[in-house]
Parts: sequence; structure tokens; C-alpha cells
Amino acid sequence: MIDKVKRTIQKYTMIKKGDKIVVGVSGGADSMSLLNLLIKFKNEYNIEIIVVHINHGIRGSEADRDEHLVKKYCDDNDILVYIFKTNVAEHANKLHITIEEAGRELRYEKFKEILKKENANKIAIAHNKNDSVETVFINMIRGTGLKGLLGIGVVNGDIIRPLIECDRHEIELYCTQNNIDYIVDSTNNENIYTRNKIRNELIPYIKENLSQRVIDNIFRMTTVLSKEDTYLDKEAFRVYAEAIKKCREYYVDIDLKKLILCDEVIAKRVVRKALYEIAANRLKDINYEHINDIFNLIYKQSGKKINLPNNIVVERSFDVLKISLENTYKEEEYEYKINKFPCSINIEENKFTLELIDNLENIINTDNVKYFDFDKINIDDLRIRNRREGDYIYLKSDKERQKLKKFFINNKISKEERNKLPILVQNNNVLWIVGYKVSPFFAPAEKARKVVRIEKMIDQN
Amino acid sequence: MIDKVKRTIQKYTMIKKGDKIVVGVSGGADSMSLLNLLIKFKNEYNIEIIVVHINHGIRGSEADRDEHLVKKYCDDNDILVYIFKTNVAEHANKLHITIEEAGRELRYEKFKEILKKENANKIAIAHNKNDSVETVFINMIRGTGLKGLLGIGVVNGDIIRPLIECDRHEIELYCTQNNIDYIVDSTNNENIYTRNKIRNELIPYIKENLSQRVIDNIFRMTTVLSKEDTYLDKEAFRVYAEAIKKCREYYVDIDLKKLILCDEVIAKRVVRKALYEIAANRLKDINYEHINDIFNLIYKQSGKKINLPNNIVVERSFDVLKISLENTYKEEEYEYKINKFPCSINIEENKFTLELIDNLENIINTDNVKYFDFDKINIDDLRIRNRREGDYIYLKSDKERQKLKKFFINNKISKEERNKLPILVQNNNVLWIVGYKVSPFFAPAEKARKVVRIEKMIDQN
Repeated sequence: MIDKVKRTIQKYTMIKKGDKIVVGVSGGADSMSLLNLLIKFKNEYNIEIIVVHINHGIRGSEADRDEHLVKKYCDDNDILVYIFKTNVAEHANKLHITIEEAGRELRYEKFKEILKKENANKIAIAHNKNDSVETVFINMIRGTGLKGLLGIGVVNGDIIRPLIECDRHEIELYCTQNNIDYIVDSTNNENIYTRNKIRNELIPYIKENLSQRVIDNIFRMTTVLSKEDTYLDKEAFRVYAEAIKKCREYYVDIDLKKLILCDEVIAKRVVRKALYEIAANRLKDINYEHINDIFNLIYKQSGKKINLPNNIVVERSFDVLKISLENTYKEEEYEYKINKFPCSINIEENKFTLELIDNLENIINTDNVKYFDFDKINIDDLRIRNRREGDYIYLKSDKERQKLKKFFINNKISKEERNKLPILVQNNNVLWIVGYKVSPFFAPAEKARKVVRIEKMIDQN
Repeated sequence: MIDKVKRTIQKYTMIKKGDKIVVGVSGGADSMSLLNLLIKFKNEYNIEIIVVHINHGIRGSEADRDEHLVKKYCDDNDILVYIFKTNVAEHANKLHITIEEAGRELRYEKFKEILKKENANKIAIAHNKNDSVETVFINMIRGTGLKGLLGIGVVNGDIIRPLIECDRHEIELYCTQNNIDYIVDSTNNENIYTRNKIRNELIPYIKENLSQRVIDNIFRMTTVLSKEDTYLDKEAFRVYAEAIKKCREYYVDIDLKKLILCDEVIAKRVVRKALYEIAANRLKDINYEHINDIFNLIYKQSGKKINLPNNIVVERSFDVLKISLENTYKEEEYEYKINKFPCSINIEENKFTLELIDNLENIINTDNVKYFDFDKINIDDLRIRNRREGDYIYLKSDKERQKLKKFFINNKISKEERNKLPILVQNNNVLWIVGYKVSPFFAPAEKARKVVRIEKMIDQN
């Protein structure tokens, strides 16, 4: 098995000389043999090893026995070990997740914590081939797409799984042959969890009645499918890079034209990536139907939107598909008061300078420079801000008043742009919709005393 | 269920007005309700229906009862019915395949036969959602890649499966509610076959213990994966179209440069397609490892080759990967005797004209026109043919003799080209390696009486 694990490590370049590795050790056959092997590789690879053991506290005295075993093995081998006591049941209850999920969350949290604290660069986990195949069954039976058929990732960022190509039986054999003590988890042989049902009943049935080689066959399938999945992701990431019009912390705009041009398979992966970008930790409840709904939105009319779980909103705008987090999205009001002249105001990429001038020659409105009659303005009410409910603009005179909302619709301005667009406004009366329209109502009279000159500075980048 | 089946038919445009459909009817619930539904759709879709029933003769009197039921139902509904008796066991024995495979082969053979005879254009088969999911399990447990996870195809060429989105339970319910008699196959409830074990034990276990919705979940997975598979095939077919240098009945040459440039996932699909092109009916024994071996050949040195089952040979040449059928490949010797002047000889795309001339002015060798001294030639021994073991050429004089094989190697001429390349030869003494070299030994003497003029005509296409 030593050679096999070395081959796995090489094939996926899991370990480099000088790595500092946090090893998760439960005390079971898998993690004990992983630890044993890494200690054997210590000199050859010039690695440092730190062990983390989590006492989940769900099996009473058994848990303490596990802790003791791990601690003793580490002490005997002169390995630094961190022991944590957690309350998995409480965590599961709080987050409404299964005990298994809660256990996983807490474990990885602690691994990351020690990685950081010890300035380590890798986390080694003892998942084996059987674990991976069981995961495939779990996902498939519950409903999945390609990603659910890939089993457990061999390398995920800083997480490595050197035993992934070994099966449970050979790991147990290795322990016996090398006199490695390990614990048999008493919950393991009971059919409490889906995984244990699959492990202890479904797969043994298949082995006996259908194919002895089921673990190898399905594991090989996962490695083949992983390559296909990686290829599809690569294609999708290429499209994503081209199709992203804007990406902020709380929203992503995807170019609709680009999305329509690509294959459904790729478009859906682009959407998934966008979702991941803004809400990686909220995707648990996003399923196949949701992705389908988002995809179908591409072909709907502008303005249609759907609400997904966890406040994710997807909206089809004129030229973009906007994926955003609703809460942050709505908070985004801004308002700047003008209280003296001259002044300058920065709104994201835009900078505005305002001054009061009395040389009234050469007053020529350009796209970026506008003039307003100072006597028509109440300086205390003057603001640069984004739109509010109730805003309006006088189009020709005070006889023709249009709601700003109507103006936006007529001019096909997307909801996103509406929210960002700076307007110069006095109470709800709009002087300038920047980039679109100046209200003639505030234009300097022929004999104006003073005018407000406002310039939108052109971005120097 | 009627609406559901109509939706399936529409979604996949399975039926068009005026279609003439051969329906395979075993007498079971699936095929009886398919027949019942198609009869109901008859006027609406303006279709013609022809039933084919195969009496496999493996269940004795039961088989005759089935035949009787189908025949009666067709007669009652005024439907043309063909009944065939086959010996599945014998067929299975002869071809060393399982009874199930033999049954399928014989059925489709008969369906195609009647399709042709009746000038019909579709074959309707009553596969349902459960069948498809069972197929996924069978393939997965035995070892598969993406294609094995797609279940049973919804539409394959002229074969349509209108019940594919219905599950077994609802089909049986439909029969009961519509008073449709059907037969329960007695072999069905026995665990003789892999499929029956999966149907009657594995899936019921999963339903009871893991997920009631397993059939729906896995069926949905197959439709998602089908799209990803289709996308990958589309990509691969694009590459295939660009990378094919030559495609004959018995071999395909794939441009190595193109193959190296593309992703492993695509390259392997290109190889699969090439295999399919030349040996569609011989691919049963070609597995994942074989495809891997072929892929690895890309990075080996020229001349390496591997032998696959069923006489498929794959060879890495200088610039192509050649996939060929060995038997036909070797038979391909040709030889043309020159027995008079002038004459013309056709070898595939090449046409050669030979004449004897005595006007010895203007003798200028070009790429396509060569001259040889008639007095140095024994006309009875002159041939145009491809290489034989023992061929040689005089390079400068009769002092410097080189084996043709050596010449080919030195000039990096691929094995394929070697086999095809016409040479002008006298016994084993080569006068002209067309396109490469003329032997100076046969060059016209200064005072030659007559010369043989041979021209390779340039292809007019």
C-alpha cells in the first residue's frame, strides 16, 4: 500500500518538499494509517506533520477512548497534536442540518483554524475509495448532475486525500500488518445514516449479487467523469470571463448576448459560477430546477425576475442577467448634500465638481458639463443621489412632468443602472439625469445673475 | 398518462403527421399501453400502425398465450400484425452472448426488416423510465463512463420511445383503468438476470430505505447528463472533421498535431468516433482501458502500435494516428503489368500513362514525368505496384543499392503511405518511387534508341 499511496501523491502532486501538513485523525483505520504513512514519508519529503483530533462528544466514553489513542500515538511518534471537543448535536440543531453535515463543518473549521495558526499549507484527510463511491451512491439516489458523480475530490485547494485510491479492506489489512491500533466506530455498523445504509447493506448486496468489482468500477467512473467535468468547467470559465459585465461583492451582471450564444450546458455552468461568486455559502438549497429556471429567464422579457432561496435574486434586464443578493442590493442608497461652492463629490467611479460662476458668457452645455440658474435653486435642498420613489422631471416646462420611473422605462435603462445612476435633484424635482437628460425648467434665464456649473469629470483610467 | 405521453412526443418531436410506425409489442403492460395510446392518437397524428410481435420461444406455452393476446388485440383494433418465432437460446449460444442480448438483437433485426418491407419510417418501443434507470445501474455497477449513465436513448435514429417518461407503476395503472389485458412475464419476477436483480431487489431496497424518489431522481440525472454528453460529442465531432486526414472503409488517419492540441476528454471522443467509423459492429469488447492505451499512443514514438480485440490495430505514425482493421489492411496488395505501349493504369486516385518514344529531344524529368532507357528494361518484368519485401533501389549507380524499406524509414514515409505508394519496378529493382526518387541506373543513355515515358496524371479534382 505504501507504493500505491506514493503513486497517488505523485500523480496529483499532493505533497512537495517542505510542506507543513495538518492531518485530520479520528482514530479509525483510515486516518491512523494515513498518519502512519505520512510519518514514514517525513524524511523523504521533508515535511512537518501536525495532527488535529476532534472529540465530537456524541459517543460518550468511546470518544474519550478515541482521543486517548490518537494522543498516545502522536506522543510516541513525537508529533504535535491538537485535541478539540465540540458539540456536534448542538451545532446540527442550530443550523438545521444533519449530524453528519454538522460534524463535517466543525471538523473542517478546526482544520483551517490550525492551518492558519501553525502557518501550515496543506490539510490531509483520510478519505478512501469506498468513501468516494458511497458519496456517488448518496448523491445519485438523492438526485444529482455530473458534479455529484465525481465522488470525493482528490485535491481541493489546500486539502489533499492521499488514501483516495486505496480501498477500505486494504487499509485495514495495512493496519493489521503494521501493528497500528485503530478504533472501530460503533455507529459505523448501525444503519443510522444514509451513508451507513449504503456502506453496510447496499454495496455488500451489489458485491454479492451483481459485481464483486463494484467499488473499483464506480471509482474508475468518477475519475473519467472528473476529466469531463473539468473540461466543461474550463469551457464555462472561458465564457464567464468574457460574459461578465460587472462583478461586485453582491451582484454579477452577465452579458445576455454571450449567454444566448453558448450551449445550454455551458450557459448553466456560467450561471452556477456567477451564483458561486456572490453566494458561495448560500448555495446549499439551490437545486437543478433553480438553475433551469434561471436559464429559462434568458428567453423571457426584460424585467422578469425570480427569487431563489437565501435571498438570491435573478433578474433579466435589457442586456444582462443580473444575479444578486437582495438584502445588500436594496441597502444601496446614497445621497450627497451640496452645502458650499465650489465642491467635489465622488460616487464610485464618478467625480462631480460644482461651482458657482457669474461670468455668464460661454455657457454651453456638453455631455459632461451642465449649467443651472442659481436663482431657481434652493441650495439647501440640492442633492446628488440615486433615485427615490416619487422622483420626477419637468421635460419641457413645468406643464410636462414625467415620473423618473417612466423615463427609465421609456429609455430602456436597466434596473441596475437605475439604482446606481446619479441624479442632481432638488427635493424630488430632478435637474439632471446624468448621461441622459437635463430639465429645461432650471436652465439659466437670459439675464441670470449666477449659474451653477456642474461637471462630471471624465475618468482618467 | 395520455397527456404526459403527448408531451414527450412533442418535446422530442417523435411523431410527425403521416408517419408509418412499426410498434414492437410483447404483450406486457408497457407495450400494450403503448399500442393502445398510438391507436388513440391515430386520427390526430394521421399515422399508420404496424405491430410486430416476437415469440422468443423460451417460455413454452406462455409464449403462445402472449402471441394470442397480441394477435387478438390487433385484430380487434384492425391493426396489421406480424408474428415471428425465433430461437433466442440458439442465437445466444451461437454468438456467445446472453439470452437478453440475443433477444434484443433478434427483436431489432425483425423490426428493421418490417420497417423496410412495409416502407415505414419509425419504430416505436415501449421502454419506460424504470427500464432506463435500471440500465444506468447495470452499466454503473459493471463499470462505465458518461455514456453508460445516459440510460436508454429517447430517440435513436428511427427508433422512438414515447413511454420513456412514464414509470412502470403508472403504466400498469393505465392498463387497469382502461381495461387493457396484459401479460406478466413469469421470468420477470425471478432473479435470473442482472436486470431483474436490480429491478426486483436493489431498487425496491433503495426505495424503502434511502429514497422513494430514486427512479425520478436518476431519470432526471440521465436527461441532464445527456445534454452534457451531446455537447462534448459536438465538440469532438468538430475536431474530428478537422483532424481526419483520410478515411477509408478499413482505416482512418487522424492528424496527430490536432489530436495533441485538444483536451484529453475531446481527444478520446475523437478516437472513439474513428473506431466507430471503421468498426461500428466490432466495438463490443473495446473498453475504457483500450481507449486510454490509444490515447497514450499519441505521446509514443512513431511506429508504435497496439492490437485491440477484433483485429483493430492502432498505429502511431509520423504525423497521423492510424486506426485500421488488420485483415483488410494486409490484403491490400496491387500489381499492374505493363504489356504494351502506350497504356494507362489507374491506381485509386492516380492515373499513369506510359508510352514509348524515340524523339529524344526535350527529355526533361519533372515531378510527374519520368524517362527510362528502354534498352535497360526487360518489358516482361516491368510492373507498377506497391512495395514487396525485398524491393531495393540503386541510388547513384549499381554500386550503391538501398533496401526500399530503409529508404522509406530515412524519408519518414508512414507505414500507410508505404503500403499505398505506387512504384515502377522491374522484378525487385525499383525504377521510380513515385513522388520521391528515380533510380539513376535506368536513366536514358546519351545515345539511347528509345525511352519509356511515364507520366503521373495530375488529378483533375
